[in-house]
Amino acid sequence: MTPAEEISPFCDDELRPLAAEMFAELRRISFDGVGITRESFGPLENAAQDIVARVAVENGLAIAHDRVRNLIVTLPGQEPDAPFIATGSHLDSVPRGGNYDGAAGVIAGLLALIHLRRHNITPARTVKLIALRGEESAWFGKSWIGSHALFGLLTANDLAQPRYDNRRPLRAYLEDVGADVAAIDRGEVLLDPSTVAAFLEVHIEQGPVLEASGLPVGIVTGIYGNLRHMDIACRGQAAHAGATPRALRRDAVVAIAALIMRMDTHWKLWLESGKQLAITHGIIGTDPAEHAISRIPGAARFSAEIRADDQATLDGFYALLRKEAAAIATGRNVEFTFDAAIINRPAPMSLAWIDELERLCAAEAVPQMRLPSGAGHDAAVFAYAGIPSAMIFIRNAHGSHNPDEHMEMDDFLQATRVLTRALCLPPING
Amino acid sequence: MTPAEEISPFCDDELRPLAAEMFAELRRISFDGVGITRESFGPLENAAQDIVARVAVENGLAIAHDRVRNLIVTLPGQEPDAPFIATGSHLDSVPRGGNYDGAAGVIAGLLALIHLRRHNITPARTVKLIALRGEESAWFGKSWIGSHALFGLLTANDLAQPRYDNRRPLRAYLEDVGADVAAIDRGEVLLDPSTVAAFLEVHIEQGPVLEASGLPVGIVTGIYGNLRHMDIACRGQAAHAGATPRALRRDAVVAIAALIMRMDTHWKLWLESGKQLAITHGIIGTDPAEHAISRIPGAARFSAEIRADDQATLDGFYALLRKEAAAIATGRNVEFTFDAAIINRPAPMSLAWIDELERLCAAEAVPQMRLPSGAGHDAAVFAYAGIPSAMIFIRNAHGSHNPDEHMEMDDFLQATRVLTRALCLPPING
Repeated sequence: MTPAEEISPFCDDELRPLAAEMFAELRRISFDGVGITRESFGPLENAAQDIVARVAVENGLAIAHDRVRNLIVTLPGQEPDAPFIATGSHLDSVPRGGNYDGAAGVIAGLLALIHLRRHNITPARTVKLIALRGEESAWFGKSWIGSHALFGLLTANDLAQPRYDNRRPLRAYLEDVGADVAAIDRGEVLLDPSTVAAFLEVHIEQGPVLEASGLPVGIVTGIYGNLRHMDIACRGQAAHAGATPRALRRDAVVAIAALIMRMDTHWKLWLESGKQLAITHGIIGTDPAEHAISRIPGAARFSAEIRADDQATLDGFYALLRKEAAAIATGRNVEFTFDAAIINRPAPMSLAWIDELERLCAAEAVPQMRLPSGAGHDAAVFAYAGIPSAMIFIRNAHGSHNPDEHMEMDDFLQATRVLTRALCLPPING
Repeated sequence: MTPAEEISPFCDDELRPLAAEMFAELRRISFDGVGITRESFGPLENAAQDIVARVAVENGLAIAHDRVRNLIVTLPGQEPDAPFIATGSHLDSVPRGGNYDGAAGVIAGLLALIHLRRHNITPARTVKLIALRGEESAWFGKSWIGSHALFGLLTANDLAQPRYDNRRPLRAYLEDVGADVAAIDRGEVLLDPSTVAAFLEVHIEQGPVLEASGLPVGIVTGIYGNLRHMDIACRGQAAHAGATPRALRRDAVVAIAALIMRMDTHWKLWLESGKQLAITHGIIGTDPAEHAISRIPGAARFSAEIRADDQATLDGFYALLRKEAAAIATGRNVEFTFDAAIINRPAPMSLAWIDELERLCAAEAVPQMRLPSGAGHDAAVFAYAGIPSAMIFIRNAHGSHNPDEHMEMDDFLQATRVLTRALCLPPING
């Protein structure tokens, strides 16, 4: 038995050069002139896996691939037949994104295993690092493809989703990398949740909260659920801007602006009442084939995304959106048509693991705070499957999904130190 | 001398078949399967001129073209050397528009001249019907090209404007039709305003006011001026929709929505205070190359057009737009960048002519009302040139600039009757 408190002291300086080298190598292969681009299920995601696999093997760790062609690095524990502890994150990126979103968690896990291996520490349970594929929805519309596939959760519709740029379907990309597409297609569970004792994911925060708080590390309380409408159409009536009095207008743009502002006001009030949520309209547009400066816009489209930490908040705020849309439709004589909603449930993290991580941070003198994750992560899919899951956030600057994304190596190593200790813990009831 | 009151009674039934035939022929040549398309300075505008010219010649009227290749039909008056009275409108249409916008005024003028010719009535002043070219801004961005060119008001920049669909510049189209491009280019005044005693334009209303009021005819009090920004850019900062708290967001779409709604509220209050104006945002959009459902929109663009019946209202409301934009930029941490404003001054119609037209309507038992024109018209350019100008609106259904545009022949003939009388009046001090 090697209780967490007794593992060999984690020496930052021992692993810092290796970490720096791996991040540099990842950047070298995937810098596209503007930012980092590692396509889900594409050649650069493969190349990133190869880098991780090579370093693992060089350090005496066993590698394998599962049937989704996620990379697995294994360190056997003292009870090899008992459920294992999983750690990991993803190696793909958004187009022109940053180097750390995803990769930081994979490298943190690898460094933890290397540290334990070098110091001949055998953790209580077998630890498996999973370098997941296809986390970013930017490529195929679907998020967390690698983890969804593991739990038999990809649909035929998901497999048919075309990549945003070349319209080639996800199914073809899965075939390219040698995934077991037949099994995925029939929804086979490729990773039995009962064999996994926990899933621990390190990830950059992707937001400014830790930065603003001056803290290197955060412990995630839960992953927001979200509800998305890709396309809400507002239809009024086009008319001459000079000749149509206000009362007779059916202006789609003003109607959408009115709805956005009403929801913005509600959002503010809900936040003030202590609820955790966000609403975003990332896309809006009139039709370039029809619109004109001097024409009352008879039609426009926009998107809506609501995120919340619990289902009741998500449902309640969504009901409010539909109610306000109906009221504006009546008042402004327009019609809103909503496409099918895409829903991801909130995923609470394991309370026991949250407490444990907090305790380990204290033991390692790593300043931390608890915070929810507004962004989605693979850990949510593990939590949906009933696996006790937890996340450690690393402070990052300039947000994520952009080339300016930044992470300090010191912060990264503090998170890795806490993860290393956590992987040595015996299973915790989640 | 033939005072207006003494001209031969205008018999609707005598001219109705000719009017119907000409509208039908115009429709036949320019119906594109969806609506009416007569391109400014294009083959179908030429063909429409040819129809008008043919009917004029068949009825013993002299035709000519000016140096912009506008068509001129002349009926000599009793004082051929004195300033003439001009009437007319345009023969082009927007793409997929209606048959009456513009053409109704040209045919009304032609029927008036034919009536006077048939009944051997010589008006006090020579009357010239001008079938103007290129009124619609839909083709080259610039409005009222034919009348602007007459008064030396086209700039080199205007001549370089590409047609919206094929990017061929206006200059090439002017050359096609045989216009004196060199003279237009050097801003030569091709129609001396001191030779024109008045400009009277019949036009469909393009709005629902007469229809809602149950009146066949309107007398225009003035043409709204307008101020347009084709492109206002709002720049904030793109960020992860889940990871960026409300207070740290720099959301360009919400900022634009806030500005649109503030101006909508101001507009309502200004109308309630008796001011005549309108604001329209016909174009809005995030960038399809950058936007995403899950990304806080860091940039978006929109248009703004303000119309008002007097310059003080136009200036005041525009100042308010800029003030509110500045306040929102500060409050929401975004930046608004306005492109160059395009300004058309308000053009008041001649008060003396308004009174005269009202008197003629009463004499002919034509129910009418006074109303401003929110839409721009060639008459504005004649008014800018200092020529006393007036307009008669004809009730229309379903608005204009669309294939459903409709006009009743009875309404058209009532307006034509009033115009015929007006053309026989001696000059009026405007």
